[in-house]
Amino acid sequence: MKKFLDNDFLLETKTAQRLFHDYADKMPIIDYHCHVSPREIAMDIKLGNIAEAWLGDDHYKWRMIRACGVPEKYITGDASPREKFQKFAEALPYAIGNPLYHWTHLELRRYFDCDLEINAKNAEKIWELCNARLSGDDMSVRNIIRKSNVTHICTTDDPVDNLEWHKSMSDDKSWEVKVLPAFRPDKAISVESPDFSGYISTLSRESGIDVKSIDNLHSALKNRMDYFSTLGCVTSDHGLDYIPWVEGCEDKADAILLNALTGSKLKKADVDAFKSAMMVFLAKEYARRGWVMQIHFNVARSVNAVMLNSAGPNTGFDSISGKDNSYALYKLLDTINSAGGLPKTVLYSLNPNDDTFLATAAGSFQAPGIPGKIQHGSAWWHNDTKTGMQQQLTTLANLGVLGNFIGMLTDGRSFLSYTRHEYFRRILCNLIGGWVENGEYPDDIEFLGKLVQDISYNNVKRYMSFTD
Amino acid sequence: MKKFLDNDFLLETKTAQRLFHDYADKMPIIDYHCHVSPREIAMDIKLGNIAEAWLGDDHYKWRMIRACGVPEKYITGDASPREKFQKFAEALPYAIGNPLYHWTHLELRRYFDCDLEINAKNAEKIWELCNARLSGDDMSVRNIIRKSNVTHICTTDDPVDNLEWHKSMSDDKSWEVKVLPAFRPDKAISVESPDFSGYISTLSRESGIDVKSIDNLHSALKNRMDYFSTLGCVTSDHGLDYIPWVEGCEDKADAILLNALTGSKLKKADVDAFKSAMMVFLAKEYARRGWVMQIHFNVARSVNAVMLNSAGPNTGFDSISGKDNSYALYKLLDTINSAGGLPKTVLYSLNPNDDTFLATAAGSFQAPGIPGKIQHGSAWWHNDTKTGMQQQLTTLANLGVLGNFIGMLTDGRSFLSYTRHEYFRRILCNLIGGWVENGEYPDDIEFLGKLVQDISYNNVKRYMSFTD
Amino acid sequence: MKKFLDNDFLLETKTAQRLFHDYADKMPIIDYHCHVSPREIAMDIKLGNIAEAWLGDDHYKWRMIRACGVPEKYITGDASPREKFQKFAEALPYAIGNPLYHWTHLELRRYFDCDLEINAKNAEKIWELCNARLSGDDMSVRNIIRKSNVTHICTTDDPVDNLEWHKSMSDDKSWEVKVLPAFRPDKAISVESPDFSGYISTLSRESGIDVKSIDNLHSALKNRMDYFSTLGCVTSDHGLDYIPWVEGCEDKADAILLNALTGSKLKKADVDAFKSAMMVFLAKEYARRGWVMQIHFNVARSVNAVMLNSAGPNTGFDSISGKDNSYALYKLLDTINSAGGLPKTVLYSLNPNDDTFLATAAGSFQAPGIPGKIQHGSAWWHNDTKTGMQQQLTTLANLGVLGNFIGMLTDGRSFLSYTRHEYFRRILCNLIGGWVENGEYPDDIEFLGKLVQDISYNNVKRYMSFTD
Repeated sequence: MKKFLDNDFLLETKTAQRLFHDYADKMPIIDYHCHVSPREIAMDIKLGNIAEAWLGDDHYKWRMIRACGVPEKYITGDASPREKFQKFAEALPYAIGNPLYHWTHLELRRYFDCDLEINAKNAEKIWELCNARLSGDDMSVRNIIRKSNVTHICTTDDPVDNLEWHKSMSDDKSWEVKVLPAFRPDKAISVESPDFSGYISTLSRESGIDVKSIDNLHSALKNRMDYFSTLGCVTSDHGLDYIPWVEGCEDKADAILLNALTGSKLKKADVDAFKSAMMVFLAKEYARRGWVMQIHFNVARSVNAVMLNSAGPNTGFDSISGKDNSYALYKLLDTINSAGGLPKTVLYSLNPNDDTFLATAAGSFQAPGIPGKIQHGSAWWHNDTKTGMQQQLTTLANLGVLGNFIGMLTDGRSFLSYTRHEYFRRILCNLIGGWVENGEYPDDIEFLGKLVQDISYNNVKRYMSFTD
Repeated sequence: MKKFLDNDFLLETKTAQRLFHDYADKMPIIDYHCHVSPREIAMDIKLGNIAEAWLGDDHYKWRMIRACGVPEKYITGDASPREKFQKFAEALPYAIGNPLYHWTHLELRRYFDCDLEINAKNAEKIWELCNARLSGDDMSVRNIIRKSNVTHICTTDDPVDNLEWHKSMSDDKSWEVKVLPAFRPDKAISVESPDFSGYISTLSRESGIDVKSIDNLHSALKNRMDYFSTLGCVTSDHGLDYIPWVEGCEDKADAILLNALTGSKLKKADVDAFKSAMMVFLAKEYARRGWVMQIHFNVARSVNAVMLNSAGPNTGFDSISGKDNSYALYKLLDTINSAGGLPKTVLYSLNPNDDTFLATAAGSFQAPGIPGKIQHGSAWWHNDTKTGMQQQLTTLANLGVLGNFIGMLTDGRSFLSYTRHEYFRRILCNLIGGWVENGEYPDDIEFLGKLVQDISYNNVKRYMSFTD
Repeated sequence: MKKFLDNDFLLETKTAQRLFHDYADKMPIIDYHCHVSPREIAMDIKLGNIAEAWLGDDHYKWRMIRACGVPEKYITGDASPREKFQKFAEALPYAIGNPLYHWTHLELRRYFDCDLEINAKNAEKIWELCNARLSGDDMSVRNIIRKSNVTHICTTDDPVDNLEWHKSMSDDKSWEVKVLPAFRPDKAISVESPDFSGYISTLSRESGIDVKSIDNLHSALKNRMDYFSTLGCVTSDHGLDYIPWVEGCEDKADAILLNALTGSKLKKADVDAFKSAMMVFLAKEYARRGWVMQIHFNVARSVNAVMLNSAGPNTGFDSISGKDNSYALYKLLDTINSAGGLPKTVLYSLNPNDDTFLATAAGSFQAPGIPGKIQHGSAWWHNDTKTGMQQQLTTLANLGVLGNFIGMLTDGRSFLSYTRHEYFRRILCNLIGGWVENGEYPDDIEFLGKLVQDISYNNVKRYMSFTD
């Protein structure tokens, strides 16, 4: 029996152990998609206590605690941090097989040198130990990032954001990690939202371009992309419930925009047409700039209206959608490609059933010069589990070229979540090590060591055109 | 090499073996969804012969035998029981990897102390041995249930059923096992059925409420629910081909009902609206009573019209549907929840691709006070296989809290099918034991022993509010 | 650690090794669906060089090389064969986990007695060694087929094909392998195609029946089927993007045909109606002749218009569709069945999510006299991987009767692809050996040896009614 979370955690063969310890584990981290706060990094804040660090903004954990029948008071409510931590510690042991169990114990070991098991009995000890550590200067946000061996972070930013914190960090000689904005124009294309006109007003103000037509909107967004570029932005990101696509959408976008701005009620087909037209426009701009386009889809957001009203969005009520997006995705990618070429593109679905069609979608739009130009993205969100990652890696290997994969990202809201890269690398090395020891690939440790280092770091560095 | 079906069948690690033998195997059984006959239990009948016991009403086996090209005469036709048994014994060895192979051999060992392999050569010996045993008093239906360590059985009953057999059993001091009705109002909501008006007449008669409006229908069903409650009913069950949902359905239900009762042809949208409105009404009533709502969906029933006409429904021609029910399910659950709160709910889909969205659906509607209030139900029917159960358990563990799971049910029509609980418990213990021995969970046998006992019995006992 | 691709490649247990070496490996091959050229067999050509043999027409490999960012010149363009081979050899090591890695190394060993690893460094050596071997008479196409122990090949042929090469081979006493046509009438039902009228003219000429009505079309196709039968055709094949089905389609087909022939624009519903009506007609004819109907579906073909225009169809831009075909498939099969009985039918979907519904579809239309009359076909195209085959075999075993399976086909365009049968047999034997050694099936090597031989060869021989 292996000891829980020992040095060879998830590494079931000697080859897997060598690949991880001698190669993958040494590599730095590029966290190319996450939701951490640039302000908190710029200000180099300290995390107040372990409840704030772990439970302050983590809807994964909130869902888990809720599933144990715990009242909302102890989740998003006004119970004390200590009380909330207790409920979490009581619930976690029942979440056997859930990645939260591994993530939190990994974080406890890597950041707090604590190998206690999280449960009701140990909660007080862990609470005190972690809080003591968190008060030290070596556990400021910047020092956590340094300790995690992170070289680049791409945050998630709205086009109207003034990026003041990114700017201040780029001017800060004492801070060596690149914290770069990523362009997430969801609100600029959400023509169906009641907030759309208000958003367009803000965009007009920030860009200095009065948006009254689709051409204006294009110009305003180009203006913001240019600004994002000055602060090192190399990637966009899109959160789409489903892939919109309507034939001839580009010819309709101007009229739909005007209707939206004048308060007319839009039909679903118009909303889809507007969004797909905007995706075509944006993709062209990304391609022109050499940016990467990340697309996340198949989400049923805030399915629980009662809780949306009481706790708000992004509090743990987002779910997997079962919609078939294959036809729309092929059409959208093809339309963009025919209009002048796809940018580098990363495709993520929340529904793991989409893995095989995504892998073949990527394989059908590859292009010269950039290995793995179209990527089947890493297992995302609800799929960010051992079995989910194994499935994504195996599908990609089966249907594409694993060696070109750009690997893991945290998608995290916490500065302690970099251990997810370790989790991923262990799973990757275990998969490859297993193949080698089973006679399915030659035992060429040098080549494979390079391969896992590429997937861990080098590939995404090249893909994002990071030069230092 | 492990011997076939030995004591450690499916238990691949020492921890798995300890968890099963020292903990799970000792627990009684609550069979909270099945299709056995309350009459046969009340009358404490004996099973005539092994063909009747195994082949009398088991469409799993019928499909398997048919797939071997055996004429219908030997399946649902007029061949002798001995001839039918022979065809079954000849076919079974080819069904390697099919759960039927394990189930029948488990039943042979547990109920008949016979470790012969079922095949053409052994058929005669098994026939004689089993029939001899079945003639003994210790193999009456009640004694089989006792021997199986069953404490509660929830049958499947129509609202118009008078529940005479449940009543007689509840009055029978010599019978200690609780055999409780479950409320299955499929016919009361199947407004598209040619039998609907006839059914409503019967419901009017049984409830004493003349159903002429939706309010009457509600009252009649409440009347029946109250009656079911007097006999210990704590759960409903719904067999839906797909999840119906129509916006504003509740306002339309009365008019649709009137159209149906006056013989008007209904549109599909009306049928869906009526069904979703009825689901909303029923769910509210279940919640008020503290009942559990079980929903089974994504079935393509009786797809073979030729065989439907000659052999009838439920004879082995039901198939998996590939329809996307995610949007409708979220909307239906949300509508119910907004209308006053969901009852305890168990969600089962016949399509295993739905596993991940179901697990996140459950996780998005959890509520205080009841751990695992919304359950991703056990692998169902065609998925009731080793791999199907592993997938359901792993998905639930990945995306929810495995420790709150209410576990297995037989869904069976046979009194010999309780070994499916053993099959499930072995798979559960093997999964958890594997995690422990692979260093993915601490080696805390006491906690894990309790956990598998909870999933085997205690959780469902609490969930169903059974107190004894 | 097992050596790469050793004698026990993919055989993880002793039982698996015995089943493969002592039983499955000895069996000949019936390649009942492939895309090799009958002309090349009839002329007994030699493959010019290893680039031509491996890269001349293999869109699997083209996709893989493209995904590495290699310019099209080196893929379908005008680079030299040696240059193309170099790019392939450079790319392949990165495709770890891709079946191409196994297939090509198996072919290198089995046909060229070369156990070098394919990579940039070894490319020159492999190039010379393979080309030297390919120039030998023992490596003519017929001798490769003989060496591969193939007894029957079913090619893929259009109804208008004159089958001259099949005819010449059937007259050739020096050629013992049966090379039989298979009837693939895709163009005869593709009423939406701009080439449809032209095709109908050709069909009229070849059949001698002037096609002006649906009855004429039926007669013309029956005429061609009769002709195909004279050359030993026993199977048809259909490549459908999705399953078409429209209620009452047969009554509409004549009018739709006339519209198509007179150049009217057809609606999608008409196209589907025509296709489903034609499927019903054809199926009846197949059943009458004892032919097998193979249906391949859920493909998104040529999704990349830029590359379709520059490189043409079938060059590696076909992708998996996510469409739900379950309802249409059940209806189509049921309509055919009700109209007089299904022929023997093999169902393949490109989307592996369809595996479970396909297995239950097959199980719902089985019929007396022919074990496994309706087959869930072998893992197809993008799923023709170790994990894809394991999933198809496990699903079939779970939901059907594995012992009746007709097994593997190459679907290949290359005469070197027969090693895919070896690959399949190893995976099959490993699956069954694993069950036996894990105590899930009795250790009856004689019965199981026969079973894997049946799945490898005997079942398909019986199914196709081959008598010699």
